[in-house]
Amino acid sequence: MPVGAFAAVAEAIAPALKPGAIVTDVGSVKRSVISQMQPLLPKDVHFVPAHPVAGTEQSGPEAGFAELFDNRWCILTPPAGTDRQAVARVQAFWEALGMHVEIMDAEHHDLVLAITSHIPHLIAYNIVATASDIGEVTRTEVMKYAAGGFRDFTRIAASDPTMWRDVFLHNKDAVLEMLGRFSEDLTALQRAIRWGDGETLFNLFSRTRDIRRGIIEAGQETDEPDFGRHHGEIGHDLPRPYSSD
Amino acid sequence: MPVGAFAAVAEAIAPALKPGAIVTDVGSVKRSVISQMQPLLPKDVHFVPAHPVAGTEQSGPEAGFAELFDNRWCILTPPAGTDRQAVARVQAFWEALGMHVEIMDAEHHDLVLAITSHIPHLIAYNIVATASDIGEVTRTEVMKYAAGGFRDFTRIAASDPTMWRDVFLHNKDAVLEMLGRFSEDLTALQRAIRWGDGETLFNLFSRTRDIRRGIIEAGQETDEPDFGRHHGEIGHDLPRPYSSD
Repeated sequence: MPVGAFAAVAEAIAPALKPGAIVTDVGSVKRSVISQMQPLLPKDVHFVPAHPVAGTEQSGPEAGFAELFDNRWCILTPPAGTDRQAVARVQAFWEALGMHVEIMDAEHHDLVLAITSHIPHLIAYNIVATASDIGEVTRTEVMKYAAGGFRDFTRIAASDPTMWRDVFLHNKDAVLEMLGRFSEDLTALQRAIRWGDGETLFNLFSRTRDIRRGIIEAGQETDEPDFGRHHGEIGHDLPRPYSSD
Repeated sequence: MPVGAFAAVAEAIAPALKPGAIVTDVGSVKRSVISQMQPLLPKDVHFVPAHPVAGTEQSGPEAGFAELFDNRWCILTPPAGTDRQAVARVQAFWEALGMHVEIMDAEHHDLVLAITSHIPHLIAYNIVATASDIGEVTRTEVMKYAAGGFRDFTRIAASDPTMWRDVFLHNKDAVLEMLGRFSEDLTALQRAIRWGDGETLFNLFSRTRDIRRGIIEAGQETDEPDFGRHHGEIGHDLPRPYSSD
């Protein structure tokens, strides 16, 4: 369910909710979901917003698999005053599925996810679009030489367009703030390249390794090279359109 | 061997080269390698520059594996007038290792690789650096919630800093040109977010899916979701520093 649809859902389910019922969700943006749903829910139900941070580039029920939530983090963002027992029950639910649970306020969630998820998706979509529009380099060339790095970006740029349109529309402030910082840093790198400042490049490229090591140590990533991608097993024969160029 | 070291290598090997010998290389930037090596090599040897587009985030001889070159593309950029038989022998060498071979001029190679490899690396390095510098979001948070998309970028940002410093210093013109286009496109996306232009976002996010499909059909990528990453097998117990925050 895209983030833009939550008000309509709240309206539809509200009449059926018994007093004391717990309502939760799995939306990727929390401030917007809360502001859409809370005014429409009966005052005597408990609303515990949740975001299980897990998934692949695929969507829908068929995209699930048994280990999807294992060892991943679920963020709960209960508004001030939310019933503690209701929060504990939602927490127990996600823990029973194998997740770790963290509780934070919705505003902080939206800022954290802007940099760990929303901006990565935005720049992945963007570079794939840029690459497909370059007149001097054909799309066939982009596809053939994608193993040089580009293909990593195409994975998250293959995510659901409706879901991601709504993420950007509904987390505008945090996304624009983080995008501003990304662009500032990129401009500094661009300047280092233009002026041949190898030391700045080397220093930056050196310190970015630690973060990956930390992610692997935190159990959030495989330590196999190339994500453990299968080599030499895929597509031994090139289909016609790519066999000559 | 980083791209910046080719002149020194040409100087060192030149006295040992017999007339008619074939010299080749595997550098990631071809115009610079040619301009560094060609003047220092004896006139009676054949120089056939090559770039096998394959590899992982790891470097060095230990990072190799049997299927590394299977079904990948190798680009040869022989300068005008290069002996045809010498080119054919280098082509046969890479084909014997399982690669497809394409011949193009060095300038076009540098432009194609700028968008399929160099810019992807640059923006991956950049977002990892941006994420580690955000005061309001801790590095521990970035690591915990990396499964939302960020961790994909950390893979290529873990590549060798010396190698990549030299790529950017030696392919400056093409990188700055492609980076300019990327930034222009990103500014247009930023504007669409600011103005709530969901249609522009949806249309762009829709058309980027085709490229991934093409890469998979061209045998350059796995069609397994999430790159076929192993789920539920990695790091079941969080190490201490990440167990609370």
